[in-house]
Amino acid sequence: VRGRTVDPAEAEEFLRLFHAENPAEGPVEPRVAAVRDEIARTGTYVHTTAELEFGARVAWRSSARCIGRLYWRSLHLRDRRHVTAPDEVAAECVGHLHEATRRGRIRSTITVFAPDGPSGPGPRIWNEQLVRYAGYRAGGRVLGDPRYVGFTDNARALGWMPPSPMGRFDVLPLVVSGGGEHVAAGPQVHEVPADAVLEVPLSHPDFGWFGDLDLRWHALPVISNMRLDIGGISYPAAPFNGWYMATEIAARNFADADRYDLLPDVAEAMGLDTSSERTLWRDRAAVELTAAVQHSFDEAGVSLADHHGESQRFLRFVEKEEAAGRTCPVDWSWIVPPISGGLTPVFHRYYDEPTDTGPMFRLDEQAKARGRGCPV
Amino acid sequence: VRGRTVDPAEAEEFLRLFHAENPAEGPVEPRVAAVRDEIARTGTYVHTTAELEFGARVAWRSSARCIGRLYWRSLHLRDRRHVTAPDEVAAECVGHLHEATRRGRIRSTITVFAPDGPSGPGPRIWNEQLVRYAGYRAGGRVLGDPRYVGFTDNARALGWMPPSPMGRFDVLPLVVSGGGEHVAAGPQVHEVPADAVLEVPLSHPDFGWFGDLDLRWHALPVISNMRLDIGGISYPAAPFNGWYMATEIAARNFADADRYDLLPDVAEAMGLDTSSERTLWRDRAAVELTAAVQHSFDEAGVSLADHHGESQRFLRFVEKEEAAGRTCPVDWSWIVPPISGGLTPVFHRYYDEPTDTGPMFRLDEQAKARGRGCPV
Ligand code: HEM
Ligand code: HEM
Repeated sequence: VRGRTVDPAEAEEFLRLFHAENPAEGPVEPRVAAVRDEIARTGTYVHTTAELEFGARVAWRSSARCIGRLYWRSLHLRDRRHVTAPDEVAAECVGHLHEATRRGRIRSTITVFAPDGPSGPGPRIWNEQLVRYAGYRAGGRVLGDPRYVGFTDNARALGWMPPSPMGRFDVLPLVVSGGGEHVAAGPQVHEVPADAVLEVPLSHPDFGWFGDLDLRWHALPVISNMRLDIGGISYPAAPFNGWYMATEIAARNFADADRYDLLPDVAEAMGLDTSSERTLWRDRAAVELTAAVQHSFDEAGVSLADHHGESQRFLRFVEKEEAAGRTCPVDWSWIVPPISGGLTPVFHRYYDEPTDTGPMFRLDEQAKARGRGCPV
Repeated sequence: VRGRTVDPAEAEEFLRLFHAENPAEGPVEPRVAAVRDEIARTGTYVHTTAELEFGARVAWRSSARCIGRLYWRSLHLRDRRHVTAPDEVAAECVGHLHEATRRGRIRSTITVFAPDGPSGPGPRIWNEQLVRYAGYRAGGRVLGDPRYVGFTDNARALGWMPPSPMGRFDVLPLVVSGGGEHVAAGPQVHEVPADAVLEVPLSHPDFGWFGDLDLRWHALPVISNMRLDIGGISYPAAPFNGWYMATEIAARNFADADRYDLLPDVAEAMGLDTSSERTLWRDRAAVELTAAVQHSFDEAGVSLADHHGESQRFLRFVEKEEAAGRTCPVDWSWIVPPISGGLTPVFHRYYDEPTDTGPMFRLDEQAKARGRGCPV
């Protein structure tokens, strides 16, 4: 990345999009000329705040896998492009958690740190999400989230001390590499203060015993290892959040065999016949887990979508995009929810193919490896 | 189609596949030479019975949307290539129903009628499936299966008399156009005798009231409007059946808003709160409908797959195909079941893309239109 100069054609394409969709910003030609000149002199250019905000919103609008795109214009930008030091990045991530959580009235927010540029890389956040739970190998089993066993090991190798005793829901520390002059220092570990992480203890509207399972989940999903690419500029650290859809927690994080794998426990507590898959105990347990997540978030006053409502909103989004004369890239297999797919209207139609141009969130292979604690 | 001659290269490619996978059939060269000669003389060629059987099985093996492919070698062939007259086609379809149903011990079966050829087209079966229920427009609503309102109208225009009184589960007649010299006669309507159609009345293992909904479904799914293409020869009438997977009936035929749309009735009878989608009443009703279908088919001794077991079998099929060095085309969005997708192992992986070469079942636009009663 170091040394790469921005492609002026990519910059121009973005600027033309920005001005076309925002006529109040005035004519595009002067800005194009200025940016071409800036790239010729410095190898890169600096987005105006309005350009950055628009670029981030369009990146969301173009996220083929995201069902929550109807309100893409509401994305709140925290512009932190001057920040490259790892401790400042960590502190700003904590600020993001506070500002976006708002005690439960979640606000879709993105914090953009320094870009990669000719004079050096921007900072990197190694975590997949700002808030996730540790996984500890213990005998043949895993305590906590098996997805993060590698990341947890890595954090410990970098000096992190897990709480004692270790639990199933220990919030992982942030692992951050600085940008610019801080690159050489390597990754640093920063605890996330408890008061920055809103969590919801789970209960079920009808099953009194459900609370005894001692489950909880964090309120805020903040993806933190995808890069934000806008008009030839690449921001490798740009954590963003919306709010959860219940099935993400209930039917994936809690249900997947390589995550918390809770369906057997829930089914047993429900008294279901688990002697064969054919008795549909998995199906029933997953629906009740989803009901519990919805009930608990609602009780706690924390924003949360459900797959039925969100599917309807998504189709409104698709209609609006079509009405605006834009293609609307959709990845069907990510949009259709992991339970009751055929019962939602998103299941029953075809969509435009995902694209790979324009402002875009991208997960590169190195970031992916860092997020899972694999050697990079 | 009339007048089209077979492409010798396509024929040869198929023959090489057949001999490669069936070494006991001897060397391929003499057969290739004979077929090339036959095509040069007649414009087409005649499959041996072994070739036809293999071609049909490979067409099944290659059906990217079919989750039931593990036992593709077991497909039973009924070779009726000499049949072109519409009444004989209809009689052979009835024979297919008897032979494949076996009072519930369903056997995967295909009946192959005369191919399209230089001297004229083969016969056509207009029905999407040999057994489907009529849909009648009544006021602003539909009695029966709304999918077949157009087909039902068309059958009536061709002389079919619905039973009196009309019901929700009236088996549609066969609509058949003859091949060869019978083409000019146009489509004919043939009643399916009641004793050829095994049906299962639905009950639920725990809900006594479920029987009062008066639901039933037919045991045998026989797709009858896809053409079977093998080595350059196209068989436009080649009805085939396996057995049902419960979710096809419960979560699609009974659940889709443009089919029987039964989830609201079931939810109400279950006493669920249907004031909002978020209460998950749809999800719960669909699971119980699925349980009812499984229970009823099991009680009646009729073969039926469930989505959990069939997903596991499907992954064994994929492994076997990979072990045999073959690509295994898969259409993810059709393989993942319409409920509890994420709870089945087929959800959690990528597959080879669908292909369009080799022996294949295909639905052409005209057949699709005929199956829905649209003008052709
Ligand atoms: C406002 C509420 C939001 C909801 C309910 C929502 C919902 C979802 C869901 C259910 C997924 C699939 C996740 C999975 O299966 O792992 C997803 C993916 C995604 N969303 Fe959203 N989203 C929201 C906001 C946002 C925002 C604010 C952004 C960016 C600014 C965003 C960008 C994305 C991206 C890039 C993905 C794909 C992630 C990946 O490839 O792993 N979403 N969203
Ligand atoms: C033996 C039991 C079988 C099971 C459980 C099974 C299951 C399924 C299922 C669940 C579907 C999706 C249907 C839908 O969503 O509309 C499907 C599609 C399909 N199956 Fe099978 N199948 C079986 C046998 C067969 C046989 C014997 C053949 C052909 C010889 C076959 C060929 C196909 C084809 C071509 C499709 C796609 C149909 C279309 O495009 O509409 N299957 N199967």
